[in-house]
Amino acid sequence: MKMEVANFLKKNRNKLMDDWIVEMKQLGGDGPLHVISDDKFESISREFFDIAVFNIVDSENRYETKVERFAEQVVRIGWPLTFLMSGLQVLKTLIFDWMKEENNYGADDLVKLFHEIENWISPLNRQIVEAYSNSWEKTVFLQKVAL
Amino acid sequence: MKMEVANFLKKNRNKLMDDWIVEMKQLGGDGPLHVISDDKFESISREFFDIAVFNIVDSENRYETKVERFAEQVVRIGWPLTFLMSGLQVLKTLIFDWMKEENNYGADDLVKLFHEIENWISPLNRQIVEAYSNSWEKTVFLQKVAL
Repeated sequence: MKMEVANFLKKNRNKLMDDWIVEMKQLGGDGPLHVISDDKFESISREFFDIAVFNIVDSENRYETKVERFAEQVVRIGWPLTFLMSGLQVLKTLIFDWMKEENNYGADDLVKLFHEIENWISPLNRQIVEAYSNSWEKTVFLQKVAL
Repeated sequence: MKMEVANFLKKNRNKLMDDWIVEMKQLGGDGPLHVISDDKFESISREFFDIAVFNIVDSENRYETKVERFAEQVVRIGWPLTFLMSGLQVLKTLIFDWMKEENNYGADDLVKLFHEIENWISPLNRQIVEAYSNSWEKTVFLQKVAL
């Protein structure tokens, strides 16, 4: 199932990314994300998408550095962590529904798909939360030193 | 499907909680959670479980205050946010597998179950992350004032 998900992502990257960005924009609404330009919003979203997908398509661990750098960037810009979490959840749902539709999966394959997607998104979720926490901890530490 | 999940949770609360706590303990390993006693670990885990389940069983919004209070408590004790996120993910997987097994769901019902569980866990996930962020932000703010 892992290869099936990876191939699906490779094959449908562009269309999936477009659908996902439409949902991300709706999620963002008039909140704090509204202050950045549409172009910037799209370029960051595309980077986020590629980091998420890279994780399953490629087996290397290079993506850890990528996630960290990405998290630092979005913390600086002021994207809330909850927004990234929702983004991953939307992505998961899009892939689940789309793959089910395309392959007409039965119950057993759906269970496998559910686990595969969970196993893929969880470490990414965890890493983004960690990068955010680190960035907070760094601030608290630097302030403590300055006190 | 919402009622089915709610009834399932009410009916199997004790057994599900026991299974979940076993997995939480394994997840915790020898990490920072190891410093608190087994009793304390269990009582916090049970509180976490009830907050998660309360969210779907009860329709009231009282749980928001509960989540906030819970988050403040675990931040104080030093439970990492990633651990709570993993906890919710384990819970999701346990419920999905168990309900599938018990009801022998076909493909259509599994898709509904997937969405129902996602829709239930996502706001909770979001709220815990927010409570954590608030707690961090408060610290940063208080330090800034003291500088």
